[in-house]
Amino acid sequence: MKAIVSVVHVEASPPRLSDNTADLDRLLQALAGTLQDGQPLSVPYSCMTSVARGFRDAGYTGFALLNDLENGWSVVGFLAEEPSVVAAMALDLGTTHLEATLVNLQNGKTLAVANLENAQIRFGSDILSRIHHGTAVRRQQKIIAADFQDAGLDELQQAILTSINELAEELAQKANIPVLEIRALSVSGNTTMTHLFLGVDPYTLCREPYIPLFNRARGIEAGQLNLAISPVAPLFIMPSIGSYFGGDLISGILASGMARSEKTRMLIDVGTNAEVVLGNSEWLIACAGAAGPALEGGVARMGMRAGPGAIEYVAIDSQTFVIEYRTIGDVAPIGLCGSGLIDLVAALYLTQVIDIRGKFREPSTEKDPKRLAFMKKHLQLRGDDMCFILAFTSDRDGAEDVVLEQIDLDAMIRSKAAMYAVLRTLVSQVGIHFEELEEVIVAGAFGRHINPECAITLGMLPDLPLSTFRPIGNSSLQGAEMVLLDEKARLECEQIVSSITYLELNVNQEFMIRFSGARFIPHTDPSLFPSVPIFSQSDS
Amino acid sequence: MKAIVSVVHVEASPPRLSDNTADLDRLLQALAGTLQDGQPLSVPYSCMTSVARGFRDAGYTGFALLNDLENGWSVVGFLAEEPSVVAAMALDLGTTHLEATLVNLQNGKTLAVANLENAQIRFGSDILSRIHHGTAVRRQQKIIAADFQDAGLDELQQAILTSINELAEELAQKANIPVLEIRALSVSGNTTMTHLFLGVDPYTLCREPYIPLFNRARGIEAGQLNLAISPVAPLFIMPSIGSYFGGDLISGILASGMARSEKTRMLIDVGTNAEVVLGNSEWLIACAGAAGPALEGGVARMGMRAGPGAIEYVAIDSQTFVIEYRTIGDVAPIGLCGSGLIDLVAALYLTQVIDIRGKFREPSTEKDPKRLAFMKKHLQLRGDDMCFILAFTSDRDGAEDVVLEQIDLDAMIRSKAAMYAVLRTLVSQVGIHFEELEEVIVAGAFGRHINPECAITLGMLPDLPLSTFRPIGNSSLQGAEMVLLDEKARLECEQIVSSITYLELNVNQEFMIRFSGARFIPHTDPSLFPSVPIFSQSDS
Repeated sequence: MKAIVSVVHVEASPPRLSDNTADLDRLLQALAGTLQDGQPLSVPYSCMTSVARGFRDAGYTGFALLNDLENGWSVVGFLAEEPSVVAAMALDLGTTHLEATLVNLQNGKTLAVANLENAQIRFGSDILSRIHHGTAVRRQQKIIAADFQDAGLDELQQAILTSINELAEELAQKANIPVLEIRALSVSGNTTMTHLFLGVDPYTLCREPYIPLFNRARGIEAGQLNLAISPVAPLFIMPSIGSYFGGDLISGILASGMARSEKTRMLIDVGTNAEVVLGNSEWLIACAGAAGPALEGGVARMGMRAGPGAIEYVAIDSQTFVIEYRTIGDVAPIGLCGSGLIDLVAALYLTQVIDIRGKFREPSTEKDPKRLAFMKKHLQLRGDDMCFILAFTSDRDGAEDVVLEQIDLDAMIRSKAAMYAVLRTLVSQVGIHFEELEEVIVAGAFGRHINPECAITLGMLPDLPLSTFRPIGNSSLQGAEMVLLDEKARLECEQIVSSITYLELNVNQEFMIRFSGARFIPHTDPSLFPSVPIFSQSDS
Repeated sequence: MKAIVSVVHVEASPPRLSDNTADLDRLLQALAGTLQDGQPLSVPYSCMTSVARGFRDAGYTGFALLNDLENGWSVVGFLAEEPSVVAAMALDLGTTHLEATLVNLQNGKTLAVANLENAQIRFGSDILSRIHHGTAVRRQQKIIAADFQDAGLDELQQAILTSINELAEELAQKANIPVLEIRALSVSGNTTMTHLFLGVDPYTLCREPYIPLFNRARGIEAGQLNLAISPVAPLFIMPSIGSYFGGDLISGILASGMARSEKTRMLIDVGTNAEVVLGNSEWLIACAGAAGPALEGGVARMGMRAGPGAIEYVAIDSQTFVIEYRTIGDVAPIGLCGSGLIDLVAALYLTQVIDIRGKFREPSTEKDPKRLAFMKKHLQLRGDDMCFILAFTSDRDGAEDVVLEQIDLDAMIRSKAAMYAVLRTLVSQVGIHFEELEEVIVAGAFGRHINPECAITLGMLPDLPLSTFRPIGNSSLQGAEMVLLDEKARLECEQIVSSITYLELNVNQEFMIRFSGARFIPHTDPSLFPSVPIFSQSDS
């Protein structure tokens, strides 16, 4: 385990007339002798006096603080006593939300956690509107000086830096250390967020042929961005591999461990996009598709992100038709998050309130009296459209009923079809079957809350034993923590980037065919979902 | 010839949907293919957008500007057309005076030259008073925070940076380029000046055991010092090897070529100290001694630095006793610079006005009537001491006669003895004779103006054929120019530093003995100076 900042014990003899080696030369010579790794050693300009003074004051014996940079060791401090804490900050730089951990590089333990809304949201909630804001002048003028920077881009960068500084202050306070003693920062974000974080022109990211300005940025110190942490803190920015495949997913692959095992695994990360990776230590193949919104709660009219008041769990007893649901924070329901939506649609299918096309069935054709009563109570025509009322909560002040409309159902079916088609295309691309997968790792809030059984019922996830599915949580943040703690993780990022193949689905014919086939519950080919009951029209 | 900033032609294909490599990755890949040297390539943070934009705007084909750094190439610009000028500034950072050259890295030609007084002079004329000013607080308080910086040190650094910026502006104006297009800076100065330039604590430089804080500083960009030139201009700071052996001398060794030849040479650089190096491509030995002041004009009461009004040349006809002299600028004489002083003392010896001990002879014992007349005219008692009046110029407004006092003569003898003892000790240390020297290279203003014949007469320089002596001019500046233009020169600096042995004369017994033996004209052992006439007492 070689952390991104190491503490190395140094013993050197004091200078004499017959040994008048310069202080920093003396220190670097002693360090080279201790490290024995042949790596270049240097002291950054801003630390020359403080390192030499620390070395002198400690009597030429003590503990050097070393940044492990790509091109060698950089000595950034010298202490007389071994520090018990060397703090470093891992950051998941989400489009809407930031999550951060402060880890102690001396023992790998978590010192503090914190999270915050991304302050860029005031310039637009999604990536496209951010890029738009950051390229206003560039869009109007075709030729401008190479070093011109849009004012909007500065605003976006300052907003995110302010958020990160707030998080850093909060972490430092919780851990009871000065914020300047946060000695490294790893950043895991999508390609656009990484561009905006560095204040780098995002103009070509969203324009065909969708070219990032960079995928890899090394050798940057926190001071260059005016971050509140130690100015010589090295930034480890997770590399990306394209406009639509960012460092957050590289981080997720790292955290999942899939690139360290010979067994083939699949990683599903549903955020704004659905990003899927398949592979093992030999090969990796990835793709991303716009399957996300419905699953993140962005499609249904009553959809919402997982937060207080969001219905995250729904079940309907297929005998008694009793509805059970649970909201986040155990408060009155105000909407449906992704997992609640999946549960609900699966339950509606299993109770035969919707058919295999995802359409509300006609109560008039219903023969079962209990189901008929249930449908009469919950299905209502609102405007021209049928909808299902999950929670009758409109009696309270200003509150609305939580409803699912036909239009939401249609969007949900499209989303789940896209998701399954992505997964199917990916495995087919490498000539394997779902059954050969050692694991299906489901990342993020989606992975944490989703009930795989319901997702299988819908035909969104493949029909595998439930033990195959492993929720992993915020893998983007976990990967960011790993690179701080271990050089092997930093090197693995490079290996992941170099071994990954990106499958472009926008021009993939097979994907389009599979997408059409998946627009039924669970699928046009029920043999793909043996565990899911199939209801013929006559069942109703 | 690999300049410190190179221009490299790049041809890359434009991005397509099927080749969505990020702009900077595309550029670095194309560059790696062109360079084929396996060196790491990177783009500094501050240049990411401008380099990528330049690359795009040029249609992915054009000319990359690359800094050649110790740890690889750094891409700092991209131009559509090949630039005819890539300007870099070489600086001789003297304690009293700065000299600078602007060179065109594209063809090695000089674009402009400029010089300026060191603005630090207002804080003290010599190195010790500067260190004193820069360490006022540190001297009073034994323990202060490692990153504390004396206000005086900041003042000194700002003063020198201001001077350098003025020089840079002047050079840029003369060359008709924006100052921001000066793309590299090499700095050659003594160890103290280099510390003050970087604002690095000079406290231990002048205190036993005389330890520099650093000898080598790499990886610094002009922007880190707020210099007016390009902020990403790399600084090449000549490495030093000790408090009293600085980068200016390493630069001189480089410029002399002595470390590139198998033949053994000696380099003499007389500034504030006399610094002497002996050696060849196999080995180098160096020492420094306080032999300088007399020779720089700092000892004699009428001594002065080489400047307008300084008598730089003196001859006295040994038959007619006619005095001939020449002043710098051909104006009325106001004092004597080093070369004039040496000429004068040698002439006084050859005309037997002084004896082998450097004492004025008694006119009363003189038998030669012409010499007697000459002595009566020029030798006068002023106060208790005899002195020689070189120029009777006291008749003009406020002007004084230019005189040489006995006390000046004594100091001169000590200085020349120290100089010869240094040279002798050095050759003896490696077991060779002066006659084996291929060349004696004399650097600086001293080398430019001195008449070696007179220095030999005094026993200051060894009695070698005059063709052995080669004046080299400002070798510190020349070396600084060389490192900008050629990687071999940059590497040679490292070789010089690692192959040099420093001989400490303060504790050298042999030196003290040789010093005593050299306190006669030309020497207690006249066989060492066969070309110099020896006058017995009876000659007079």
